[in-house]
This record gives sequence, structure tokens and C-alpha cells, in this order.
Amino acid sequence: MNNQYDQKQLEAAWSTGKAFVDRGRVAAYIPELAKQDPGQLGVSVCLPDGTFLNTGDTDVCFTLQSISKLFSLIVALCQNGPDEVFSRVGKEPTGDPFNSIIKLETIKPHKPLNPMINAGAIAVAGMIQGKGVEERLDSILDLLRKMTGNPDIRVNEEVYGSEKKTADRNRALAWFLKDSGVLTADVDETLDLYFRHCAIEVTAQEVARMGMVLAADGFDRCTGEQLFPQAIARICKTFMVTCGMYNASGEFAIDVGIPAKSGVAGGILATVPHRMGIGVFGPALDDKGNSVAGVKLLEQLSREWKLGIF
Amino acid sequence: MNNQYDQKQLEAAWSTGKAFVDRGRVAAYIPELAKQDPGQLGVSVCLPDGTFLNTGDTDVCFTLQSISKLFSLIVALCQNGPDEVFSRVGKEPTGDPFNSIIKLETIKPHKPLNPMINAGAIAVAGMIQGKGVEERLDSILDLLRKMTGNPDIRVNEEVYGSEKKTADRNRALAWFLKDSGVLTADVDETLDLYFRHCAIEVTAQEVARMGMVLAADGFDRCTGEQLFPQAIARICKTFMVTCGMYNASGEFAIDVGIPAKSGVAGGILATVPHRMGIGVFGPALDDKGNSVAGVKLLEQLSREWKLGIF
Amino acid sequence: MNNQYDQKQLEAAWSTGKAFVDRGRVAAYIPELAKQDPGQLGVSVCLPDGTFLNTGDTDVCFTLQSISKLFSLIVALCQNGPDEVFSRVGKEPTGDPFNSIIKLETIKPHKPLNPMINAGAIAVAGMIQGKGVEERLDSILDLLRKMTGNPDIRVNEEVYGSEKKTADRNRALAWFLKDSGVLTADVDETLDLYFRHCAIEVTAQEVARMGMVLAADGFDRCTGEQLFPQAIARICKTFMVTCGMYNASGEFAIDVGIPAKSGVAGGILATVPHRMGIGVFGPALDDKGNSVAGVKLLEQLSREWKLGIF
Amino acid sequence: MNNQYDQKQLEAAWSTGKAFVDRGRVAAYIPELAKQDPGQLGVSVCLPDGTFLNTGDTDVCFTLQSISKLFSLIVALCQNGPDEVFSRVGKEPTGDPFNSIIKLETIKPHKPLNPMINAGAIAVAGMIQGKGVEERLDSILDLLRKMTGNPDIRVNEEVYGSEKKTADRNRALAWFLKDSGVLTADVDETLDLYFRHCAIEVTAQEVARMGMVLAADGFDRCTGEQLFPQAIARICKTFMVTCGMYNASGEFAIDVGIPAKSGVAGGILATVPHRMGIGVFGPALDDKGNSVAGVKLLEQLSREWKLGIF
Repeated sequence: MNNQYDQKQLEAAWSTGKAFVDRGRVAAYIPELAKQDPGQLGVSVCLPDGTFLNTGDTDVCFTLQSISKLFSLIVALCQNGPDEVFSRVGKEPTGDPFNSIIKLETIKPHKPLNPMINAGAIAVAGMIQGKGVEERLDSILDLLRKMTGNPDIRVNEEVYGSEKKTADRNRALAWFLKDSGVLTADVDETLDLYFRHCAIEVTAQEVARMGMVLAADGFDRCTGEQLFPQAIARICKTFMVTCGMYNASGEFAIDVGIPAKSGVAGGILATVPHRMGIGVFGPALDDKGNSVAGVKLLEQLSREWKLGIF
Repeated sequence: MNNQYDQKQLEAAWSTGKAFVDRGRVAAYIPELAKQDPGQLGVSVCLPDGTFLNTGDTDVCFTLQSISKLFSLIVALCQNGPDEVFSRVGKEPTGDPFNSIIKLETIKPHKPLNPMINAGAIAVAGMIQGKGVEERLDSILDLLRKMTGNPDIRVNEEVYGSEKKTADRNRALAWFLKDSGVLTADVDETLDLYFRHCAIEVTAQEVARMGMVLAADGFDRCTGEQLFPQAIARICKTFMVTCGMYNASGEFAIDVGIPAKSGVAGGILATVPHRMGIGVFGPALDDKGNSVAGVKLLEQLSREWKLGIF
Repeated sequence: MNNQYDQKQLEAAWSTGKAFVDRGRVAAYIPELAKQDPGQLGVSVCLPDGTFLNTGDTDVCFTLQSISKLFSLIVALCQNGPDEVFSRVGKEPTGDPFNSIIKLETIKPHKPLNPMINAGAIAVAGMIQGKGVEERLDSILDLLRKMTGNPDIRVNEEVYGSEKKTADRNRALAWFLKDSGVLTADVDETLDLYFRHCAIEVTAQEVARMGMVLAADGFDRCTGEQLFPQAIARICKTFMVTCGMYNASGEFAIDVGIPAKSGVAGGILATVPHRMGIGVFGPALDDKGNSVAGVKLLEQLSREWKLGIF
Repeated sequence: MNNQYDQKQLEAAWSTGKAFVDRGRVAAYIPELAKQDPGQLGVSVCLPDGTFLNTGDTDVCFTLQSISKLFSLIVALCQNGPDEVFSRVGKEPTGDPFNSIIKLETIKPHKPLNPMINAGAIAVAGMIQGKGVEERLDSILDLLRKMTGNPDIRVNEEVYGSEKKTADRNRALAWFLKDSGVLTADVDETLDLYFRHCAIEVTAQEVARMGMVLAADGFDRCTGEQLFPQAIARICKTFMVTCGMYNASGEFAIDVGIPAKSGVAGGILATVPHRMGIGVFGPALDDKGNSVAGVKLLEQLSREWKLGIF
């Protein structure tokens, strides 16, 4: 039992967040995402013993979008090791927007600053090993199926198709990386893998369970399995603090203080080291691309439950 | 007869330039260009009466490369008019390198600063009308065949193939333009047209004749035909001064003072309003991408013959 | 007599320009300039024989502002020679605004791209020799008194004071140049000289006369004196084409085609090689900082009188 | 007694670090700092009960340099509140160097990205209240005297003088901020305060004690006094993670995982929430400006003692 984390406090935080849904807007640039109901909000908390606290829309499916950057990074690190991965992508936060191309040209050597911006995640996708896009995607899906305990985790084909049609800036980034020698894999295949893994579908409760695995340094208490090494879990949590919330990461670190990664479908994966995983779904976004209600909800929850790591 | 422009003075300028060929290097990034002999140097002058003064390698074939940007611009302007063309590409020089992508992101609206940098020339290529790449390319070839009087002007297929394989930065630029809405044509077709017209083959003497047509504001004295409107010729000559010599355009304008456009195969097309066209071929390039001997040669010629327009 | 340049055509161009005065606004950031009447417009043409054609407000005093950058450049070139001057300031146009600081950091070596942007003009001011600010200023005033034939040319103290109070961005540029080693003179003295020479007062007719001296390559036909070397006059005219009209220089070169330099008090100095100098005063500015009516007026005049150099 | 943190392990980490001193160089741009002995290395650990573990040069005096940015921020936050402070300086990390001026121009509104880069720290210095520079400096010195328990903490006048002479880039930043309206205080006074507080002298042991106060959220266990609010301590620790180690902050967060702030005199203040403060002094710097031996030492200590917060 977890007396310390009260369902009522979770609901109160949910209500606080809910009041902000009309301050945001669903992502418009991917047509399928534009169809989402901006009024939705769900939050799920997964505790170390595997129990959940849920409020709101916690079983609605949504796509990972940028949250997937964490999992392609985990797979790439497991397959290639940190030295190889960080020879092609940096570890530094950036004050630039997630899809910016400027620093690729101005920084020497021309490698993306970190794996949480699009350029960096495309470089990471290019390092995932396997024959063809399907096999590479399976590495990521396998990890997610284990982390969620759901063997049916899959790509939403409509969102993938929609994504693929509207991704010209990502194509520009990929060709720039190819030109710089950072991306040595095939550009079209790498982009295809990138678009697909952005379109993987989950629920807030599944995200909470993934967050708990990260909180436990890669260890899945439900199955007793170490899904990936502790060192890799820590790398992920560090990136979540320094650059997980687009270019509002610094503000989120101060106001909320929890490692977290957001996606433009409205999801947020938050992880409190050793204590809990939190999954949020709220598709109305602020101007930085983060769930407007989700951020408010997490801010209150962090204060109430003293979750901040600083 | 043209007593005022002496063959001996041309030869003296050629000798001055020749002394600099070992200060430069042939373009290395396109394998076919890397095969060129850096010691070559040729200069041809075409006078209003259609006569030529030639010295050195004036009948060696080389590819236009960036000089082709002038001719795609002429075709695009003829087909679409200046208002349409300049709604998608600017008129301003830039201090950035020819293949820079930074200003595409920082300048609002996101249009290339001018048609002489790669991004601008790709935008221009996207405005050339016709069914398929072949028909569009023919518009450019037709113009060049008329301007040179050589009906056999054609694309060098080896250089085109080599170009296509090493053009990832141009692909990045094109997709960025597509994302910004500047490029509405098909990206792959536009790039294909762009690569092909860069690989069109000419001699220094043919370039001189083209320069004379520009000097005569689009009028071809050999055939008595106005090949394109005077206003378009003037637009070209202006761009040649402000941004024809990559990011050494300002220095060239001060030191030489003649409208000119260079290409990385070593060609320079120079045009002295109402007085002459000059074609130069010298594949050893300086660090800005201009023919090192060609620039020296033109500097001396301009001083001797008082060609500067300022 | 100059039958070819008709007073009526000048008046027609003036009328065309006049219709645009309400499309612009007087410079607001220097309080003294904000007091100017935006409806004013004057144009003066100075011909090789020293005669003038005048229309409108040609005897109203206004301050040179950025037009002064030409004259400090001439003095610096005469005193130090081009090699020394261009070791500290470049020759290339830039697509950035006149007061931008970015390229000072990104370009290596850290020297301003050209002497027509603020950073470049401050670097030039730092090269003017003399004991104290007064003596340095006198070098510039002496030149201007000769070029205008008016021994009373002086600084407007109110504008100078106003300028000094509102010049924090210029201070930032100067300290950056000091840090980079481009500026070796005293920062405060250099800025003081810069502010003062911006506040030198002239009339449109005086500007026309200065333009005629430049048109005649530094030769003053009224006195028969060569005021500065031909080579320096050409350097100035080249900069006027590539970067004289802020970041609308490329557009002006295409639409008007005359070497010209503008200032935010509404002045434009235009020079048609060997043919005429033109002085314009129209304080209502467009969003690039150029006289909105002045540009329209010059565009029509260039078309009517075929003044374009391309 | 603190059996868990062993003196021998501290000495081992010190030895590991010591092996790297010759890989770095003392800061050269401030003459007084260039006099430091690059071979020095000291580390002090302050535990919650007020006891210390010391190894090496822990009582050598050195100047805070950028570490002082933490304390001016604390004072500014105490005096003005977070809303006012963060209206003038952002919360986001940046991939740019500490003295970069570019983002001040490109980011709208023009405020520095965070208080740990020079521009941000100058903006913070401008918000410190008091009559004259002395009184403002006293606010910072008072805080430091309490945090260290040393009433004699003072400015090193030689370093201050040296600093003042070589600070032209900081002057450029300050004037840019003045121009943007971010800095409303007097520029010269603000810079004077900034240079002085950079030159405050401390020892590694004093830094360790300051780190312990931050670790205890502003509470000083030695005196039982809450020196500043918990919320402000957390803001500081967050900035230390996202941008405390110049543009190696991301790498340090991954490799070491402890909130830390470095200075170019060779100091590092590290703080492990609720567990300890660490003071390091090692003046040989890596190319990012961090103590090369200090970073290695902390990396080993973090691994041995499991100090990482992620």
C-alpha cells in the first residue's frame, strides 16, 4: 500500500491541469494529430510495487512522437555502446528549437548537440542495427513491449502515413547529417524508421509503467528482468532533465524538477528516481510543444508529493 | 578592327594569371572535377562585332557549374516574370558561403537571399516550367545554344552522375525550401534539373560569346535576335556584381569592377556592358571557389583596358 | 546647357516620390530625428559643368547619418592606404541588418564584413589619425567643406547629443571590436568621433555636389582640384552598389542601378559615374531605413534618364 | 563519524585527478590568473554534521570567477523575487559559449538565456539593489561570509584590477543588454560589481561549506540559520545541472551527475542534495574552461560514493 501518494491529491492535480486545456492547441502540422480532442487529460502513476493510480483519460491511445527518442537512444546505446553513439551525437542542451538546423552548420564538428532534438534523434535512428527498417523497428518495439508489459504495442499506420507526408524539415536535417558524415545509414530508411517509431501507440498507463522502469534504473520489478543497463537509464534521465521538454526544459526543471520527456501528441513520460513513473496524456499543447495541462498537473504533483530531485 | 583591345595585352594578362595556377586547387568534392588539369588557363574575349581574341585553353570543354545559375534565372524570369520569381527568392547579397543553410531558418519569410547561392538557384530551378525534367532542361539548353551559336551544347553525363552522388547538402537545402513552401515543385525532379544544368559543357570562347549577349542587353548581334528582354539582362548583370563571385563578390567588385559569375569547374563569365564578353577557364580554385588565375587575369585586363564600371 | 536632363522630368519624378511620403516614418530611435517633418522631399542634381537642377526641399538642412560612412572611409583610406584599412574591415556585402553583431562572432577572423555597416564604420573611425577627437573630426569636415564648396559645414550639436544618448548598440559593437583587436584606438573617443560625424549637417544640393565629385572620380571640376585618388573614389562607388542602401542594397541595385548611400535622417547620395551627382532628402523612411519617397524618385529618374550602370 | 565516505577513497579520487593536471592550462586571458600554479589540486568535502574531509590544496586562496554567478543570483532572487528576475533573464540552457553574444540578437525578446552565462550574470548583477557598488557588493559578501563562516571573505584587488582591464567582451554584452532594455542599471557600475564579485577569494574548504548549505536547501546547520529560502536553493541547483559547467554541462551531468558550478580560476562548487558539499580547486583548465583534474576527481568520487542524482 502507498499511503503517501493519495488518489485525491492526484485528482486535485488533474483538476488543476484540466483548467488549462483550453489554453493550448493540438499539434496542427501533422493532420492526424490535428484530429485529437484537445479537452482530453489523463494521468497515471506507476509505483515500485507495480500498482497504479489513474485519473482521467489513461486508457486512450496516443502516439509517442518525441518520447520515442528515449527508446531509440536506449536501443542504440545497447547495440553500439556510448562511445560510438556519442561520437555522432553530443550531450549538450541547446537553446534552439527542436527542429533547428542552424547549429548543424555552425558547430564544428557538425554533429547534433543532443539526441532529444530532431537532428540528434535522426542520427540515433541511423545507428540502430538490423536488416531493413522492419527489423530495426522491431528492436524498438521489443523494448517497448517489455517495458509496458503489452505485447501488442504497434505503430499507428494513419499517423505514420500522415507524419511521412509532412516531414520535409526532417528530410532536410537527415540530408544535412548525411552530407556531414554523421549519418552513414541510408537516408530514406533512416527517416522511415524515425517516422514509424514516432507513431508507436501507447496509453498514459503504459507510459507510467515505462517511467517506472527508468526510475528503477532499467529494472522491471514485475518480471524481475533488467531490461537495459543502469548506466543507460541514467543517461536517459539526465537528457530528460537537460533537454526533455524542448526549449522549455530549463523552466520545467526549475518549476517541476522531475526528469521528463514530452511528445507533440500530448504525452509526457516522467520518472522520479526510485520512486515512480508518471504517464500523462493531454493533447492541447503550449507554444513550445508541451502538453499545457500536463505541465501544470506535474507542477502541482511535484509540489504536493515533493518529487523534485534538486 | 579593334585596335583598342590588343592581343598582346591579353597575352600579358594571361601570363600574369598563369603564374598563379599553382596557388589554387581543382574542386575536390565532385570526383569528376577533381580529374581536371589545374595548369590549364584560357581566356576569350568577344567583341560587339562578333570577333574574338583568344589566348590559351579556349577550346577545352568544362562544365558551367554555378555559371548555369544565370541561365536558369533568365529562363525562370522569361517564363514567370520578375514578380513571381522574386516572391520566392530575394535580391540581396549575403556574407554567407554559397551552400549555407542558416539564413533559410533565421530570415523571415524563409526565402533564399538571392538566386546566385545554391538555395536560391534550387528555388529558381523549381520555377522552370515544362513537362518532366527533359523539357525543362531543354528550355535552358535552347537558350544556351542560341547564346553560343552552338547547337550541340549538351550535358556532360559523367559530371552529372558524379554531381548527383555528392550533393547531399543540396538535398538538405531543397527539402528545407520544400518545407518552407518556397519550393512547390517536386524535390527530386528539381534537384535532377539542377544537377544537370550544372553539368552543361562549354568552352571559354562560348562563354565569351554568352557574355557579349549579356553585355548587349540580351541582343545577339550575330543573328540580330533579341534573345531575352533588356530588363532581364540588367537583373543578371546586377546579381553578377553583388553576388556573382561567391563570398568574394565584394572584393572582386572593388579589385576588378566587372559583372562576373564563376563556377567551381574553373569558368568565369564576365560581361562589360556594351563593350565585350569575356570567358575564362582555369580550374585551379582559390579558397572561395573562384579560379585563382582567372581572377588575377581579369584584374590586369580590367586595369589595362579600363573595363571597370564604377 | 544640358538639354538631355529636363527640369520637368525631375519634377515628375519628385511628384512620383512625393506620393509615397505617407508610406514611411521618420526615424524614431534618435529623438532629434523624430522631430523631422515626414512630408518633406527635395532632390538636387549636380552636372559635370557645375550647374544644378533642383526641386522641392533642396536647401533644408539634415544630418548625414550613415552617408558619413563614405567620408570617414575616404579619409581613412587616404591616411592609411587600402591594405591597412582592409586588414581591419572586409569588402563583402552582408544580408544582415546594419547594426547586427552576430557576424562579428561567427566570422573568423572577427572583422566587420564591410565599412557600410555600423561595426565596419566604427572600425574605420578608429583608423582616422589625429590628436584627439577634434583633430580627427576636422579631417572629415575639411573633406566635406571642399566637396560641398561650403566652408561652414558643421556638426548639429542637438542631433549629436541626441545620438550619443541613444547609442548603446553602437557601444556594444565598439567594445566587441576592441575585444577582437580590430579596434585599437580608444573606444570612447572613437564612438565620439562616430556620433559627431553622423551629425554633420548638409542640404540636398550639397549632397548632389558631393555626388558629382565621386562621379568624377574624386576630381572637383569647380576648383580643378583632385580631392582624393581615383582608386578611392571607385572603392566608394563599389561599396555604394553592394551595400549602400542597408539590406535593401541588392533590390536598389536591380530597380535603380545607381551607386548610392542612404542615411536615417532621410538623405541619399547617388552618383552616376562621369554624368552626375544626385542629392535627395526625404525623412520618411521605409522599414529598411531608406527614404521611401527618395527611392521611388530615383527609380523613376533612372528609368527616364537611363542612369543605370548595368 | 562518516564511515560511508572514506578519506582513502577521497585521496584515491584526488590521485586520479592529479594525473590530469598537465592536460590542462591555467586561464590566460586574465593576467593575474595566468600566474597560478597549474599543478595545484585540492578537494574538500563538507558533510551535514559540519565535518570536513580534505585532500591536497584545500586552503589555497583562489577567486570565485563564474562560481560567483550563483551568489549574485541568490541575492537578486531574495531582493526582487523570481518573477522580476526571470522577466530579465531566462531559465534555458544554451549550446553556445559562455561569452557568446549571438543569441542576444536572435532570440526575441532579447533576454539572456540563463544566469550562468556572462550576459545573464551581468543582467542579474544589474538587479542587485543598494546605493553604489560598495553596498551592492556587501550584499553578496555578507551572504558568502555567512555561508563560509569566514567574516574575512573579501575581493582580491589584483585579480579585480586585472579582470577590469581585460573585459571588453563583457562590456559589449552589457551595452547590448542596456540597448535591449534588459539592463536598466548603470552599465559601468554594474560591470564594476560584476568584476569585483568574480574576484572574491575563497578556499576549497570554504567552497565545500557553501556547497553543503545549498545541499541543505539554504539551511546552515552550523548556525541553525536559514540563509535563503529553499525554493531559491532549488533554483540554483537546477541551473547548476543544466548550465553550471559552461558548454560541457550536459556531459558533466551524464558523467558525474551532481549539480556543480565551475570558475576559470579552477574552482568547482558541487552539491549533493541533503548529503554533502564539495569544493574543488585545480587551476589547470580544459578547453571548455573547467578544471580538468577537478572533473576527473568528481567523476571518480561520484562513482565510488554513488552521488549521482539521476
